[in-house]
Amino acid sequence: MKTITSRDNAQYKDLVKLAGSAQARRKSGRTLLDGVHLCQSYLQLRGAPEQCIVGETALHNREVMEIVGALQAQHAHVLALPDALYNAISQVEHGVGVMFLIPTPERVVTEPLKVSAVLLDGVQDPGNVGSILRSAAAAGITQVYCSAGTAFCWSPKVLRAAMGAHFVLDIFENVDLPALVSNSQVLSLATSGYATQRLYDVNLRQPVAWLFGHEGQGVAHDLLALASHQVVIPHAGQVESLNVAACAAVCFFEQLRQNQG
Amino acid sequence: MKTITSRDNAQYKDLVKLAGSAQARRKSGRTLLDGVHLCQSYLQLRGAPEQCIVGETALHNREVMEIVGALQAQHAHVLALPDALYNAISQVEHGVGVMFLIPTPERVVTEPLKVSAVLLDGVQDPGNVGSILRSAAAAGITQVYCSAGTAFCWSPKVLRAAMGAHFVLDIFENVDLPALVSNSQVLSLATSGYATQRLYDVNLRQPVAWLFGHEGQGVAHDLLALASHQVVIPHAGQVESLNVAACAAVCFFEQLRQNQG
Repeated sequence: MKTITSRDNAQYKDLVKLAGSAQARRKSGRTLLDGVHLCQSYLQLRGAPEQCIVGETALHNREVMEIVGALQAQHAHVLALPDALYNAISQVEHGVGVMFLIPTPERVVTEPLKVSAVLLDGVQDPGNVGSILRSAAAAGITQVYCSAGTAFCWSPKVLRAAMGAHFVLDIFENVDLPALVSNSQVLSLATSGYATQRLYDVNLRQPVAWLFGHEGQGVAHDLLALASHQVVIPHAGQVESLNVAACAAVCFFEQLRQNQG
Repeated sequence: MKTITSRDNAQYKDLVKLAGSAQARRKSGRTLLDGVHLCQSYLQLRGAPEQCIVGETALHNREVMEIVGALQAQHAHVLALPDALYNAISQVEHGVGVMFLIPTPERVVTEPLKVSAVLLDGVQDPGNVGSILRSAAAAGITQVYCSAGTAFCWSPKVLRAAMGAHFVLDIFENVDLPALVSNSQVLSLATSGYATQRLYDVNLRQPVAWLFGHEGQGVAHDLLALASHQVVIPHAGQVESLNVAACAAVCFFEQLRQNQG
């Protein structure tokens, strides 16, 4: 285990930059996972991180000790920081004091869609994107494709909301969704309040590319026109729309219900 | 229309307090709706607010003009503020510049549950609470009961996330949920990863009290034990849990699907 005690240390300064700037994270192709749950999930599903960073006090926490122990057995890099230095780079208030520095995979689309997938067109809110990733992973959907206008999936807020879903998903960002949908070998479904076909009346016992859009404007018109089906989730109240993440959950689990039924 | 131009005006100072402090809002039993969509919804569903507050520039916006016109026809109170004063009390960045000051209804439980309802036990995140209210309203469920530990429903964040759902719902706060569930005349259902009965195998063609709990710990054990059913939403992936608002959406719309099926 290495210890840094000076704020002027070059490696520490890099961490400060990474913690504070979305641009720095994108540029370096790395991000920070903050908190025990995310670190445990990563370790279990993806193995050792590039580096594990712990606060001094956290070294006495049982869960953190287990993580650090497992990493040291694998000769992985562990960096200990005085609490003041640790807290300056942590985004979690009252967190336990453990972070992983990990590479953010950059995937390039090379094949047409052949299995169920989630396509996000300009979904803005990191909490919504995270919740959608979490629901997809829970429903067994593993492919996620995001347009350039969608929130960056590896931001701390999306990571927190997704609760580890990232590590079982293949996430593609900055994707040309119209091209992807045009070449898709599976059904592409978008929900729309104007559609007449009910979600429940589509045969979902087959792979589906689920298309969700911007919180206010929905899926872009030209993209919507390319979808093979537009479906409506029937409503009963005076309120006519659902939050996009709630809508996605209803769709994914309707597909799962039909498949398990 | 009244205009205030001084920051020292007593009425303006009250608005500043209300905008900045959750405690002030609770104490005065009033809150602020910020933005065109919320104000339009309120006007349509509940009528005139206690007061409408507009920024000077917003008076030239077509949608704001329509709202102000409708209110003036009803002799309702409209207050115009210079943009600088308006922006100091607005919580919406780059908003259009219209707010309603409204009373927050305090409802007291006097009857046992007889119709479908949502029961929130310590749901912390305002975005989750708002999304659940929105989904409930869309599914035609109009009764909402919150424990003391649940996020305050009339906070700006919950109001924004619920997109006007509040105005079609009867919301009860600080409710003794164990007493409510014990006396319920309808099924009470809680989701749990440990349950064996599937959501889809329960007959939901009847009123249901849906019980959802804290994001981390779920429904409190003593309350969970009082529920008439514990059900599981079957999963397919390695990720075993859903965001509470996603979970609620799946439940409400499964009930609606069964009722419409």
